[in-house]
Amino acid sequence: MSAPPVRIVLVRPEHAGNVGAAARAMKNFGLDRLVLAGASLDDPARAVRRAHGAEDILEGADLHPTLADALAGCTRAWAFTRRRGKHRAGSIHPEAAARATRAAVEAGEEVAWVFGPESTGLSAEDLALCSDQVSIPTAPEQPSMNLAQAVAVACYVYAGSAREPAPPSPPRPAPIESRQAFYGHLERALLAIGFLHPHTAAARMEAIRRYLERSRPTEREVRFLRGIARQMEWVARRAGNGDPPPG
Amino acid sequence: MSAPPVRIVLVRPEHAGNVGAAARAMKNFGLDRLVLAGASLDDPARAVRRAHGAEDILEGADLHPTLADALAGCTRAWAFTRRRGKHRAGSIHPEAAARATRAAVEAGEEVAWVFGPESTGLSAEDLALCSDQVSIPTAPEQPSMNLAQAVAVACYVYAGSAREPAPPSPPRPAPIESRQAFYGHLERALLAIGFLHPHTAAARMEAIRRYLERSRPTEREVRFLRGIARQMEWVARRAGNGDPPPG
Repeated sequence: MSAPPVRIVLVRPEHAGNVGAAARAMKNFGLDRLVLAGASLDDPARAVRRAHGAEDILEGADLHPTLADALAGCTRAWAFTRRRGKHRAGSIHPEAAARATRAAVEAGEEVAWVFGPESTGLSAEDLALCSDQVSIPTAPEQPSMNLAQAVAVACYVYAGSAREPAPPSPPRPAPIESRQAFYGHLERALLAIGFLHPHTAAARMEAIRRYLERSRPTEREVRFLRGIARQMEWVARRAGNGDPPPG
Repeated sequence: MSAPPVRIVLVRPEHAGNVGAAARAMKNFGLDRLVLAGASLDDPARAVRRAHGAEDILEGADLHPTLADALAGCTRAWAFTRRRGKHRAGSIHPEAAARATRAAVEAGEEVAWVFGPESTGLSAEDLALCSDQVSIPTAPEQPSMNLAQAVAVACYVYAGSAREPAPPSPPRPAPIESRQAFYGHLERALLAIGFLHPHTAAARMEAIRRYLERSRPTEREVRFLRGIARQMEWVARRAGNGDPPPG
């Protein structure tokens, strides 16, 4: 089994034992790129003990202060969330995520699977950095899985997806950080032309971001869209700041 | 999710933490009959801690001195083994085991899924008491899974066998004519702000249309996007028609 370059990203893990156990599960299923974002491990010796044969993955883990850093260079990132809350209706099944991930990996893209802290899961800010959401279907009586068990199930599903033919790959998306930078630019431009106002910007930008992310713009498309944003800013400057625009 | 009467049998488990973690995973996937065969838990408090919401399953566990007792009344028992050794060639994939198990359960049979001790796995004597063998496919470099993670993967697969998940249906797109009308409006707005020029408009609009159509905007999104286009036209009018914009 070759090791595909899927990053398994643990965001602010709380228990060193879970980090070690996650490494063990990754190695069970042929994955080896562990990334820790914002982790401060309480008991490193415990991580090593629970890794149980996967100490190499633990030692080779990349450490980053933030999730944004951990995702640098990725074209897509699947956030594992519990399926609840009104913004999580779009989350897909692990097997669909595994097929899409394998297609991206086979197209040479860098991708990540992202898992949140034990007690709270991924925050809204974390989710906004990820391109996709995936939920392991669990019983309503006990929705929350142990972190390392969730990693084990995810890696099992990913390994199993090797047996199926990959679906045709969509156009290669621009890196996540370049898409995020574009959304920031677009927000400034929409404020400049008076479509957004500071007090409503966040909610409306979230709606527009969700729509634009559904088709994940390519690098070329991002450049094109930034050209439109620049032009909006230029026209707004030319229109001056006299009357407030109607919006 | 109803709780099918599959017994999850842990044979001579060594670590109480794993028993608790296995109970948690069972409850995640709607299973609730835990059976311990020949267990003497080192640290019951630790089992309770790791159960984390599945204390009821732990407390309701049946305790038996031997695997033979634990399997009394079962028509079939699937032994989870690592796939190696000459007597293990007949082991099947977890998904095949899940389908067969569900068929038996639906026929009213009592069945069991059997997991061995952490350090050694099931013995030859244990295997002789089971009717079937099943292996979770793992990498040759790290074949041995953590006990509770193996239970989690098995329960995930069993829960999934209940119903192939329907893929999430994408949001209902706006009617084609309404999307076309929006692209026409967007073209006028981009001409107005000077991003498009009459001689290049067709090719550039085709590129932007292809991108926007990949996620087929909903009626609500079309209204939202037309709001942006209207605002661009308004700002452009305000900027006047003096100098040509740079584009």
